[in-house]
Amino acid sequence: MVPLLLISVLNAQAQEPPVGLRVPRLIAGPLIVETAEQPLIRVTVVARGLVHPWALAFLPDGSMLVTERPGRLRIVRDGVLDPKAITGIPEVRAKAFGGLQDVALHPKFAENHLVYFTYLKPVENDMGAPVVARGKLEGGALTEVRDILVADAYAGNSALSARIAFGTDGMLYVAPGGNIDNVAQEPGSLRGKILRVRDDGSAPPDNPFAGRAGYRPEIYSLGHRNSLGLIVHPQTGAVWNNENGPNGGDEMNIILPGRNYGWPLVSFGREYTGPRISDAPAREGIESPIVVWLPAIAVSGMAVYTGDRFPKWKGNIFVGSMRTGEVRGTGHLERIVLTGKNEELRRESMLGELRQRIREVRQGPDGYLYLLTDEDDGALLRIEPAQ
Amino acid sequence: MVPLLLISVLNAQAQEPPVGLRVPRLIAGPLIVETAEQPLIRVTVVARGLVHPWALAFLPDGSMLVTERPGRLRIVRDGVLDPKAITGIPEVRAKAFGGLQDVALHPKFAENHLVYFTYLKPVENDMGAPVVARGKLEGGALTEVRDILVADAYAGNSALSARIAFGTDGMLYVAPGGNIDNVAQEPGSLRGKILRVRDDGSAPPDNPFAGRAGYRPEIYSLGHRNSLGLIVHPQTGAVWNNENGPNGGDEMNIILPGRNYGWPLVSFGREYTGPRISDAPAREGIESPIVVWLPAIAVSGMAVYTGDRFPKWKGNIFVGSMRTGEVRGTGHLERIVLTGKNEELRRESMLGELRQRIREVRQGPDGYLYLLTDEDDGALLRIEPAQ
Repeated sequence: MVPLLLISVLNAQAQEPPVGLRVPRLIAGPLIVETAEQPLIRVTVVARGLVHPWALAFLPDGSMLVTERPGRLRIVRDGVLDPKAITGIPEVRAKAFGGLQDVALHPKFAENHLVYFTYLKPVENDMGAPVVARGKLEGGALTEVRDILVADAYAGNSALSARIAFGTDGMLYVAPGGNIDNVAQEPGSLRGKILRVRDDGSAPPDNPFAGRAGYRPEIYSLGHRNSLGLIVHPQTGAVWNNENGPNGGDEMNIILPGRNYGWPLVSFGREYTGPRISDAPAREGIESPIVVWLPAIAVSGMAVYTGDRFPKWKGNIFVGSMRTGEVRGTGHLERIVLTGKNEELRRESMLGELRQRIREVRQGPDGYLYLLTDEDDGALLRIEPAQ
Repeated sequence: MVPLLLISVLNAQAQEPPVGLRVPRLIAGPLIVETAEQPLIRVTVVARGLVHPWALAFLPDGSMLVTERPGRLRIVRDGVLDPKAITGIPEVRAKAFGGLQDVALHPKFAENHLVYFTYLKPVENDMGAPVVARGKLEGGALTEVRDILVADAYAGNSALSARIAFGTDGMLYVAPGGNIDNVAQEPGSLRGKILRVRDDGSAPPDNPFAGRAGYRPEIYSLGHRNSLGLIVHPQTGAVWNNENGPNGGDEMNIILPGRNYGWPLVSFGREYTGPRISDAPAREGIESPIVVWLPAIAVSGMAVYTGDRFPKWKGNIFVGSMRTGEVRGTGHLERIVLTGKNEELRRESMLGELRQRIREVRQGPDGYLYLLTDEDDGALLRIEPAQ
């Protein structure tokens, strides 16, 4: 567990753009906002005082698990944040972008109470390794916690994201970040990949590279820079990710087994100092994204809306943005409308007036949308129709 | 001259996205806005009640010429809009995106009083042809008005933009829109090109395709969809354009003689119905844009800031946006920071809270920025530092 005093130091280590807007304190009362297709929405602060909340999962009783990046797992019951953290989270290395990150329930959680989470595990020389762990949630505690998948450690002080999602095939999909050097193309590394493993972390025999020399058998797809969103599409069962480009070139992909998504060989983006990553943003044999952002919006959590509360949003993709165009204080919630063939029709940027880093977006069992703001004084927000 | 009653009909003919925000009436008083690098700016409404103002040019005495798309040339003296239009503008066809558009002064205006403008000229069967005309500005009248360049007429009821800018070589650069069919690639058409002509509209002998069979000698570059911005960079003398992509793929280009900029063979954009325009967004032998927008922001007028009022904005590119992501009511002013090699570093979206279509942006001789909002009740805005 990392003391709060360390938080400002942690932030200083994260890459932040050199210029930006001041981030105001979130309003206390509900905010009514006009949007393009679901005219008025109400944004309510459900809980605040969360320290860099990162991910959100709904328990069968409607409670919410919320991770805080410094290493706490919190629970919100009946709309009230329990001041006590859930015990049992191992020590995390909360530096750069690392720490406690994603959380997801086992598909048979009602029977086995298993909670999966990702974190940056301290290893030698101040380094960290992205890890998937699981534990049994009983009372206010995770018990029988154990690491089920340990990826290769990051070099130096760097660290990225690790998202997880259970597929309709019962397999766990895992996306550890890979933007450093050529690691995303290296078949012997688990980073910069999307992995497909059993619920105990072992590789199933039908994975695309199973048995191929030099390839880790967990690999499902290659060439991912840093997956900030990873979901199983609720209507099709397909695995989708989104990933941060560098300066420009954030992208959303449909993940197919054995395919290469190009990082760092091919990108729509630029180095932060200006030069293009690649001469051309597409290449034969490399999967092209279905949505690209230029400029980058620092894409983060992702959800497909399937509820009845917002009829005009059905099937739309929601993506959190932590900033736009390399300017601090310009995070927002992005809504994307696709055709039935997953071709883009339009995008709407919402909630930019809050100036918050929107880290996570999930649909609740009540059909509302829930967001997390990744700030020192982070919040859980609920979006409802206001008319 | 088009009666005001027709304006709503004209608007209905223009392609507008199916969804959007309500556009509020512009505030009356000055608005103070925080921005990322020039902390507080003040936005003042200099003049309102302009009907779809399109372009702005500064006279040597600091007065401003403003075109209104329905066919009027207006003048703002000492910050006051003259209720009387300048006489002498020929009949325009104000349909689709056409009408009276750009305006520019001859480099020797102080001696010859020549004003250049572009408009859509009515031709047979309700069609219109993009035209560059010029006249002598004397008193409140343009006299000796004549067309100096008449491009091929648009098919059906369509019509696009035509921008003009005088180069440091004394030549007039002209960009008539070309997004229909393959016209931007046809060497016998003047549309979808950037043209380079003398101040009387004739082609100089050193143009890149001069004397080549099948090519119009006025052509300077090919493959442009619809240039909404055309400037001569005040620091380098290079010709820059920006052009609207379709659904996605707005771009900014540095224009080199004889080059092909790709439309409709290569684009970062999609059809409005979803499919990609081209398999890949880049191709050998096609010039790639220096800045691309995904989603599109409906780029419009463009300026490079060179004044002293906003020291942090020096060298930045400003581009008007008429909407973002195919959502109405999301126009804004975009600021782009490039390296000395014209590589993108960051972009800032400003003034989105106004929800106006920003058609034009120019730097005034006083070092402030001036904008036009292309609305039924359009306005001339001035941006100053507020601290």
